[in-house]
Amino acid sequence: MTPEEFRKAGHEVVDWIADYLRDVRSYPVTTSVQPGALIDQLPSRAPEQGEPMDAILKDFRELIVPGLTHWNHPRFLAYFSISASGPGILGEMLAAGLNVNQLLWKTAPAATELEQVTLSWLRQWLELPEEFFGLIHDTASTGTMHAILAAREAAAPEARKSGEFPQLVLYASEHAHSSVDKGALVVGAGLDHIRHVPSDERFRMRPDALEQMIQEDLAAGRKPFCIVATAGTTSAASIDPIPEIAAVAQRHGLWLHVDAAYAGTAAILPEYRHILNGVELADSLVVNPHKWLFTPVDISVLYTRRPNVMRQAVSLVDVPPYLTADASDRAVNLSEYALALGRRFRSLKLWFVLRSFGRQGIAEVLRGHMAAAAQITAEIQQDPRFEIMAPTLFSLVCFRYRGTDDQNRDLLNGINTSGEALLSSTMLQGRMVLRMAIGNIGTSLEDVRTVWALIQKLAPR
Amino acid sequence: MTPEEFRKAGHEVVDWIADYLRDVRSYPVTTSVQPGALIDQLPSRAPEQGEPMDAILKDFRELIVPGLTHWNHPRFLAYFSISASGPGILGEMLAAGLNVNQLLWKTAPAATELEQVTLSWLRQWLELPEEFFGLIHDTASTGTMHAILAAREAAAPEARKSGEFPQLVLYASEHAHSSVDKGALVVGAGLDHIRHVPSDERFRMRPDALEQMIQEDLAAGRKPFCIVATAGTTSAASIDPIPEIAAVAQRHGLWLHVDAAYAGTAAILPEYRHILNGVELADSLVVNPHKWLFTPVDISVLYTRRPNVMRQAVSLVDVPPYLTADASDRAVNLSEYALALGRRFRSLKLWFVLRSFGRQGIAEVLRGHMAAAAQITAEIQQDPRFEIMAPTLFSLVCFRYRGTDDQNRDLLNGINTSGEALLSSTMLQGRMVLRMAIGNIGTSLEDVRTVWALIQKLAPR
Repeated sequence: MTPEEFRKAGHEVVDWIADYLRDVRSYPVTTSVQPGALIDQLPSRAPEQGEPMDAILKDFRELIVPGLTHWNHPRFLAYFSISASGPGILGEMLAAGLNVNQLLWKTAPAATELEQVTLSWLRQWLELPEEFFGLIHDTASTGTMHAILAAREAAAPEARKSGEFPQLVLYASEHAHSSVDKGALVVGAGLDHIRHVPSDERFRMRPDALEQMIQEDLAAGRKPFCIVATAGTTSAASIDPIPEIAAVAQRHGLWLHVDAAYAGTAAILPEYRHILNGVELADSLVVNPHKWLFTPVDISVLYTRRPNVMRQAVSLVDVPPYLTADASDRAVNLSEYALALGRRFRSLKLWFVLRSFGRQGIAEVLRGHMAAAAQITAEIQQDPRFEIMAPTLFSLVCFRYRGTDDQNRDLLNGINTSGEALLSSTMLQGRMVLRMAIGNIGTSLEDVRTVWALIQKLAPR
Repeated sequence: MTPEEFRKAGHEVVDWIADYLRDVRSYPVTTSVQPGALIDQLPSRAPEQGEPMDAILKDFRELIVPGLTHWNHPRFLAYFSISASGPGILGEMLAAGLNVNQLLWKTAPAATELEQVTLSWLRQWLELPEEFFGLIHDTASTGTMHAILAAREAAAPEARKSGEFPQLVLYASEHAHSSVDKGALVVGAGLDHIRHVPSDERFRMRPDALEQMIQEDLAAGRKPFCIVATAGTTSAASIDPIPEIAAVAQRHGLWLHVDAAYAGTAAILPEYRHILNGVELADSLVVNPHKWLFTPVDISVLYTRRPNVMRQAVSLVDVPPYLTADASDRAVNLSEYALALGRRFRSLKLWFVLRSFGRQGIAEVLRGHMAAAAQITAEIQQDPRFEIMAPTLFSLVCFRYRGTDDQNRDLLNGINTSGEALLSSTMLQGRMVLRMAIGNIGTSLEDVRTVWALIQKLAPR
């Protein structure tokens, strides 16, 4: 493909994306395709000869798009909603064209430094301590695994060479994300030594229960090494009491990681900064610009107060010659702080987003989402057939039809197969609960009311 | 940013990328910026109010681009050269606009299935066994870590719960990539139990030395669990003898992982398929479309013959063995086979590349690169001041000035600061060696000859 052929096709693709952003409400949020539908439609072998781009784009429009769930749809309210904002897409386009790989500072100086600058900007917005060192990972799963790895390094530094680990134990709330357990599993903690700490009636980790579990493990000769607190759990957006948990961590010398993947962004608002109270005592924190900061997937930020431990945790005794870096202090090789050597230029899209919105622009969207969540919560409470199942925090509404789990399951299925909206579910206090997670940049109160009206219509009288 | 504002800016960005692709030779390959240059030029805080896109794009052009090393430049010959081809960029643009997240099949059916289809296509091109199950990771580092994790699971399945591991030992050639050691470190093998197997005079792992090391570890009561063979080492593109290594692995019941991140692509050519002889006996293999398959970073493919072990290795529950990847349930949740829950729509760009080039189109570029490498090797051999330091395999040329390491270092520095080309270096048999890695889609024999003429000019007479 010549540059001029790229130009022509690129303009077509931009027009398609612009149309998509404009018309996204006309798409069903979900698809009705059956498993295997695309596999059955595509050739079983790749072509021998190249095909014209027109044919590829036609298949993209006719075969791929109809088989997708539309995460960029304003009535996508499942999991945590995300957004590819215009500025974020532009940043991704340029990153793809440049195709730099930040192995080392010298292989992409401006990309390395833009990662430092944007993460410093975000750190200031979140009022994190200045010494917090930031690094971009693909997802919070990966960032959290690195935090747990650093915790392992801090607890058992000799084991990096010997491979002889004490019986490590990790603690997280029963409502912590499953990626915490996965991260602990990967670094070798063993599922039997991952403690799910009970929570209180508002789904917050109980520091007294945490303390008791640690005491029991210590008495049994095991080695507690890491606590993960969550600010904005996936199930209920609940906020663990970070200051009290930090006190426990400090008392026992444990690494404290804070998972603020979704809700951390809210701390940009002065009236919500309190949710991160206590993080100055944490060792690491993860927040996802690809969740509630309108940046296309994937970009998750891991901050740590102890970058040297993080670096040591993934460091080899003998650094191979092709990784030898410049000696200058200001030339930071970000790959030295992570498992992955290759690093895509992910900060570019974040820079586009932060600058294009500005703090006020982002704050306005966040406040709109939270106001919509509060308003719809009030409206749900007006319908005696429904009950709110958790305090509405941030932009997540947890509710259920006052009936059986099966009835709620049928209701969810009815909503989701309508194509009008997508919700997801969770279990709270042993019961099935519907989640309405507002977070797409295009989602308005009107959208949420449309969905609520649909739910009311579908629910048994 | 409204859709129409995105459209306008998107067209500008496409024009910029098209111009960049057309004019990339006019850019210096490397930048002369000093560490901290961009940090010093950008505001220390993010803006309160949003800024116009024109201002952001202006800063992109004037501040970011001049501070980059241009990986998409045809005379970028360092590390392993990569390419953002036009079709690949178009795929990335659309993936950013859609912004789907393949958490589960149902959250992105067509994206999940396109990953299966494209990896099946690639698997056929590489003539890998049909039972090889493919999964996209960001980088080979991550894929290899997952392979080692699966090896750990296969060797010590009870430890997934207990966290009580035997003393695991991993084996890889002294020329294996550093990410192998990093992966073993992450899963807890301990650096003292990573064996760097000696290689022969052509930098290939010695199966006899491997066997001896395993015997010694067994005699000492340790548990060998994984062998990593490399097809195309980073230092010299050498190919470990996979059939002989596989025999050792089978004899001792060890997981065999094959790192074909760079050179695996060459197996698309019938005349090079032999480099993967023996992989049918391997348990896993990694190959990077973002290296020599003209797809923008990041996309690395991990194939495994034992997907159930891979799945179990990152599973928080016991996966029933009858739940295979190709079970009657066609809705495969790819995230069940990896640490990361979130999955970007990376297969789209690969689909664009495979279709737009076709097998013949890709073969043509690969053959051109290899012919250029062979030709320049012959020309280097004509200059008595230089010597070829490793057999020229694939498109990598390893050579040195017949002088001191310092003289070679000065020469490399002269080349790289010229802005005309970028090379990297390695150590072979204790001496500094220059590497010329041909792999960018735009690189012609003329480019390579231009670089060689520059080297000849800069080298001491």
